[in-house]
Amino acid sequence: MSARVLIVDDLFPNVKLLETKLGLEYFDTLAAMNGPDAIAICEKGLCDLVLLDVMMPGMDGFEVCRHLKGNPVTAHIPVVMVTALDQPSDRLKGLDAGADDFLTKPVDDTALFTRVRSLVRLKAVTDELRQRALASRAYGIGDPLATAAAESGLDANILIVEDRPGAAERMATALLQHHRITVETNPIAAMQLAAETEFDLALISLDLDGHDGLRLCSQLRSLDRTRGMPLIMIAEAHDRARITRGLDFGVHDYLMRPLDRNELLARTRTQVRRKRYSDVLRGAMQASLQMAVTDGLTGLHNRRYLDSHLGALFAEEGVRGRALATLILDIDRFKSINDTFGHEAGDEVLRAFADRVRQHTRPIDIVARYGGEEIVVILPDTGLTEARAIAERIRERIEATPFPVLRQTRALTVTVSIGVAVRGAHDGSPGDMLRRADEGLYEAKATGRNRVVAQAA
Amino acid sequence: MSARVLIVDDLFPNVKLLETKLGLEYFDTLAAMNGPDAIAICEKGLCDLVLLDVMMPGMDGFEVCRHLKGNPVTAHIPVVMVTALDQPSDRLKGLDAGADDFLTKPVDDTALFTRVRSLVRLKAVTDELRQRALASRAYGIGDPLATAAAESGLDANILIVEDRPGAAERMATALLQHHRITVETNPIAAMQLAAETEFDLALISLDLDGHDGLRLCSQLRSLDRTRGMPLIMIAEAHDRARITRGLDFGVHDYLMRPLDRNELLARTRTQVRRKRYSDVLRGAMQASLQMAVTDGLTGLHNRRYLDSHLGALFAEEGVRGRALATLILDIDRFKSINDTFGHEAGDEVLRAFADRVRQHTRPIDIVARYGGEEIVVILPDTGLTEARAIAERIRERIEATPFPVLRQTRALTVTVSIGVAVRGAHDGSPGDMLRRADEGLYEAKATGRNRVVAQAA
Ligand SMILES: [Mg+2]
Ligand SMILES: [Mg+2]
Repeated sequence: MSARVLIVDDLFPNVKLLETKLGLEYFDTLAAMNGPDAIAICEKGLCDLVLLDVMMPGMDGFEVCRHLKGNPVTAHIPVVMVTALDQPSDRLKGLDAGADDFLTKPVDDTALFTRVRSLVRLKAVTDELRQRALASRAYGIGDPLATAAAESGLDANILIVEDRPGAAERMATALLQHHRITVETNPIAAMQLAAETEFDLALISLDLDGHDGLRLCSQLRSLDRTRGMPLIMIAEAHDRARITRGLDFGVHDYLMRPLDRNELLARTRTQVRRKRYSDVLRGAMQASLQMAVTDGLTGLHNRRYLDSHLGALFAEEGVRGRALATLILDIDRFKSINDTFGHEAGDEVLRAFADRVRQHTRPIDIVARYGGEEIVVILPDTGLTEARAIAERIRERIEATPFPVLRQTRALTVTVSIGVAVRGAHDGSPGDMLRRADEGLYEAKATGRNRVVAQAA
Repeated sequence: MSARVLIVDDLFPNVKLLETKLGLEYFDTLAAMNGPDAIAICEKGLCDLVLLDVMMPGMDGFEVCRHLKGNPVTAHIPVVMVTALDQPSDRLKGLDAGADDFLTKPVDDTALFTRVRSLVRLKAVTDELRQRALASRAYGIGDPLATAAAESGLDANILIVEDRPGAAERMATALLQHHRITVETNPIAAMQLAAETEFDLALISLDLDGHDGLRLCSQLRSLDRTRGMPLIMIAEAHDRARITRGLDFGVHDYLMRPLDRNELLARTRTQVRRKRYSDVLRGAMQASLQMAVTDGLTGLHNRRYLDSHLGALFAEEGVRGRALATLILDIDRFKSINDTFGHEAGDEVLRAFADRVRQHTRPIDIVARYGGEEIVVILPDTGLTEARAIAERIRERIEATPFPVLRQTRALTVTVSIGVAVRGAHDGSPGDMLRRADEGLYEAKATGRNRVVAQAA
């Protein structure tokens, strides 16, 4: 994946050198020679990845990184810190600031390109999610990006695949402070476990006894059920080629033996945060899809849902030669509840009314708010006698127990009128059935309310 | 990106050979030895890419490919045909069947891995979109996958970047039959053009005079505005290394000189289809987000939208020290319209009522359907006198022109009562302002209807 890489360094020759290297590999580059300029470029959405010098006058690289990772607008941009001094304390400081990785000056080309490509590819998938989240924010359906960026990366469910008992124990001990840990020594069992359990991350030794750990990584990245789980390889110094290969096919990060405890904690946390970032965005998307077919007040399906499902259901039940019934329920004198006790009381009654109707229907029935105080229930595989009985039961239960309303000392007695119809042999569309149910409802209202009227086809 | 590759070949040694090659590169593999088995595996969603033998007894590779590409469930899976005879007519037949590419037996390793990796990476991005589309189908919000898979790939807007006049003309002539063509010889001008215009595809010569065409490809893949546009490289036989590089960073396909006219048409069509597949899914997602905040009947915003935006607007206008006004509009005796002329007539009146209100408000105002026959209008930067005048104008226009209703010979005279309020100095939340507007509405109804009552803070 090609990408625009922002090079941040206070020394011009350093900028030039990286520009040339990346240009030869067909990356597009931009440059900034101080922290504030770098932040401005990122906030404008002009780059896909940041190569960030640590030592700069004024705002140093750590501060720039913390700033980028703390802002929902820029938190998704991968940051690779480039440092002259490869001190563990430095690395840790960068990782704690949210950096995705480290490169040491002079920068090794393979390491640079492998890392940049891997991070850019992972970002390409998240970008698609991010675009949806931005749209959802624009429509005012929450702000999933802010929630996603605020994720702590703690309290994760982590799988360790490692068959050296000492190493596994040290990792588990270090991570147990913040996470839940499962250790598995056998790669086949690990694969199965990962497919069955929701892990937030797997740490995988490349040197399992008699098994190439990288193959397990590849399988985990291939299977739909496990593809979303980030992977960190645990490697030896001589494993460079396999590390490159792994990053190339989508492994997220790696740690070198002997493991540095703090680096283990920091990289684990970064990957958990990244996964949850995507999960939050996916969840928000799911929620807004659900919103589109849900009535906000009652939580019932809305008319849009009813309209889009009823046609198919009508045809399907017809083909199978099964009955199909409709109830239209309308609260009696609802306007006077609103007028006497206020809109809020009216809303409370509607919510409680919806709950009671739901309690007397099955999961396969469609229960939808149709208009103001009207609910439509579609009952598959149900004939007229049965439908009338269900309607009668609902009518009784609404009348039997008054509705408690906030700030009113006495609960309100509410009644409902219900029209009932079933699909007739000559019905061309669900509209015919609905119309008869509506006529039933009209008759119920006209003949005194609080009653059920079934309309024959 | 790792992936599960399905190898389809009727000869066991061929299957084994590809399995071994792909396994060494850490791909997961599955095998099928005939067409129907291959289709079944694809329909179960078990693979990310298909390597498909052309010559098989029974159902041949072309037929399998056509089947996979014609079914919305499998249309998104890339298919690479593997053929012993590299005849142009064969290639064309495969491309026409929807294949994404061709490999000739014996399969060259670099070509195989480059192609498989490139297709799998492109798929990873589409998969995220596809997941959302599946969810949207499950909620009954249309079936974008079927629409997307049915895309013809014709009538596209295509950019050709080529400075050899003869070659450019031949391409343009071939493509003009089905598409709109723009030819550009200068890569810098091409970059600008691509950023400003919605092209469905760009064909880019790698050998522009004094310019590396691959760099243009990289820039097009890097820029947000152009990233979604598929690219096809036009290359010479000696360009293998650059082709590989291009596919590696996200160029979608390539054609070798001398160009085969039919192959040009077929590959162009495949890429246009792929782009539109993604566009349709993105559009559907956008539409369902919009649905979540839109009232299905009137097309106005719904209460959910109002609730989520009013708080921020209330705070913002307060900080700026600007006024904020609310109208609550309620159709008079709406129930009697429903009862006398039926629900459908009532719905027509509501829709027309919403349209008229919209015509007398500005784009910055929020106009939302609040309940059954109630509309709330929020007017930023508007004081009580002005808000009352706006309300009065709406009231007049509703009364002045009767509402035509289907199947009624005479249009219905409709009136509206409106409550008006502005944010007061002591209002803690928008609820305070809404409550006063509601009181105004109540008074308007109580004192004869068809009137505007403004409630001072
Ligand atoms: Mg420096
Ligand atoms: Mg064969």
